[in-house]
Amino acid sequence: MRSILFLYIEAGISPASGNCKRMNHNNSNSIPDLETIRQAALRIKPFVHRTPVLTCLSLNQMVHAELFFKCENFQKVGAFKFRGATNAVLSLSDEEAKRGVATHSSGNHAQALALAARIRGIKAHIVMPKNSSAVKIKAVEGYGGNIILCEPTLESREETLAQVVKKTGAAFIHPYNDYRVIAGQGTCALELLEEVENLDMVMAPVGGGGLLSGTALTVNYLMPLIKVIAAEPETADDAYRSFREGKIIPVINPQTIADGLRTSLGDKTFPIIIKYVDRIVTVSEDAIVSSMRIIWERMKIVVEPSAAVPFAALLENKIDVKGKRVGIILSGGNVDLDKLPWID
Amino acid sequence: MRSILFLYIEAGISPASGNCKRMNHNNSNSIPDLETIRQAALRIKPFVHRTPVLTCLSLNQMVHAELFFKCENFQKVGAFKFRGATNAVLSLSDEEAKRGVATHSSGNHAQALALAARIRGIKAHIVMPKNSSAVKIKAVEGYGGNIILCEPTLESREETLAQVVKKTGAAFIHPYNDYRVIAGQGTCALELLEEVENLDMVMAPVGGGGLLSGTALTVNYLMPLIKVIAAEPETADDAYRSFREGKIIPVINPQTIADGLRTSLGDKTFPIIIKYVDRIVTVSEDAIVSSMRIIWERMKIVVEPSAAVPFAALLENKIDVKGKRVGIILSGGNVDLDKLPWID
Repeated sequence: MRSILFLYIEAGISPASGNCKRMNHNNSNSIPDLETIRQAALRIKPFVHRTPVLTCLSLNQMVHAELFFKCENFQKVGAFKFRGATNAVLSLSDEEAKRGVATHSSGNHAQALALAARIRGIKAHIVMPKNSSAVKIKAVEGYGGNIILCEPTLESREETLAQVVKKTGAAFIHPYNDYRVIAGQGTCALELLEEVENLDMVMAPVGGGGLLSGTALTVNYLMPLIKVIAAEPETADDAYRSFREGKIIPVINPQTIADGLRTSLGDKTFPIIIKYVDRIVTVSEDAIVSSMRIIWERMKIVVEPSAAVPFAALLENKIDVKGKRVGIILSGGNVDLDKLPWID
Repeated sequence: MRSILFLYIEAGISPASGNCKRMNHNNSNSIPDLETIRQAALRIKPFVHRTPVLTCLSLNQMVHAELFFKCENFQKVGAFKFRGATNAVLSLSDEEAKRGVATHSSGNHAQALALAARIRGIKAHIVMPKNSSAVKIKAVEGYGGNIILCEPTLESREETLAQVVKKTGAAFIHPYNDYRVIAGQGTCALELLEEVENLDMVMAPVGGGGLLSGTALTVNYLMPLIKVIAAEPETADDAYRSFREGKIIPVINPQTIADGLRTSLGDKTFPIIIKYVDRIVTVSEDAIVSSMRIIWERMKIVVEPSAAVPFAALLENKIDVKGKRVGIILSGGNVDLDKLPWID
């Protein structure tokens, strides 16, 4: 099997064409179907990286399985979030788009939306808590985002966002509870299934459920026999409990190193997850740190704690993968290199 | 430009066939010609990874050039060293091979030789200084190497090695001053030139000169108009000075974070470098650390300090690369994750 010229496609930054408008049929008000996810893939294709799938013999040997890592840590802005944000921004009509977009986020979605908006040539208003790190604020500014600081409470976030939307008429793009975003995240599994045959299962981490619901839809539409399994920190186990109880059980201010997974499921992601996900398992904080370190050390790639959660589940034997072919989505690689969890 | 299934070819570990012997014509006593490097590529192909070439828009923008990173940090044992060691081990006659191989090294060559020997099903005797870190000793043991500890002096190393060779009849495989090793290292540039067209220059770090001389040979044979430029730490600038003075000027116990580059040129690597390398530049320790951190942060890959030295030269404006297409060999990714140079 010969590989590999793995060259990133560095898309030029240019306003989207009128196509965006024409392609925007009925995909924001209902659960994305396969056609909608395929349209999302086409729409974002010029702007996102087709990320590589990596394998690593020593990790395989550790868990007695064949693992295929879909490396969204190599995605633009360093996370899968750029897929969903780009699909949402490019799905807006010209009329909507000209008033800009807005969101509240201190994480990868903030950067993703800022860059997606810049690609379309529109404004992105990003509400961020005052106590966000300087690095994160700078990153959003670097992508041209207009930052509005708020108090570090959910109330202040939502209130500030409402004011911004009222004042500017900007379209609110939720980080995950939005069908356009879900469809965009579903394009990642689309690529994975195109490239790796005969998978037995696909694993993704779960926070708000955007990546997981998009992944579950794609896998169900294309290869319904492949199991979709989510992994979540024990200390932020709202998805696990919601899945078990059959209703959304939010988690309040959870403490986990996997900062991308501190959010709770939304009313758009939850029904998809309940229907199409086979299982949700939880992992300890120690396993997350071990998993992250092993991936850095053996695969020589930088992943953030959230991305290490599915492999952590294998380290903890939460799922029987022996002899199986397992696709794992490495969700992102944005880490503060000054504060690594295994260094005091 | 569509990519990317980047699947590592995980070669099975099996004894080499008799082909090795037949292919071993005249390649250990003279400077490798193109045919010898091509033979080396064929010989090691079933066992080495064809590593990917990565690009990164933000690094390009920093230095106003197009950079193509050949990722030997993804090579087996985490460094290009596996190419040379494998070629040397597979080049031995069956008669030679059955007595095993030996070397002194506490670095990547030790692991590389141990694994290469295991592939051929023979013994590797690795002389390591007593003060080697437990991690490194464990890594060599993990690949099946037979470790002989010595005092941490050059004299003790050489004496201990001589005893081992005398006792076992093992073939000494020098880490770099060996034409079979040089030919093996030259296969890396072979892949780079196959995959990236119209390069203006190729950069490699220089320590003992195995990678640099192999790279310079390949580039000269195939694309003589491409400049070959080496980068070296200021504090271990023996290659820079040797190149300028036209004779080998060894460096004694240099202090640099780039631990792979503390060695001096050898009498086999130096003449090749003098003849085929266009320029050697030196970089500060600060630039090496900055370069390493930028590569981790922006490219999301783990590289060791030595691998970061060529890009450090671009950060310090040591070479005019504006508008140029530059191949850079990232030599390895073996780092002690407990001790990162930017964390106190």
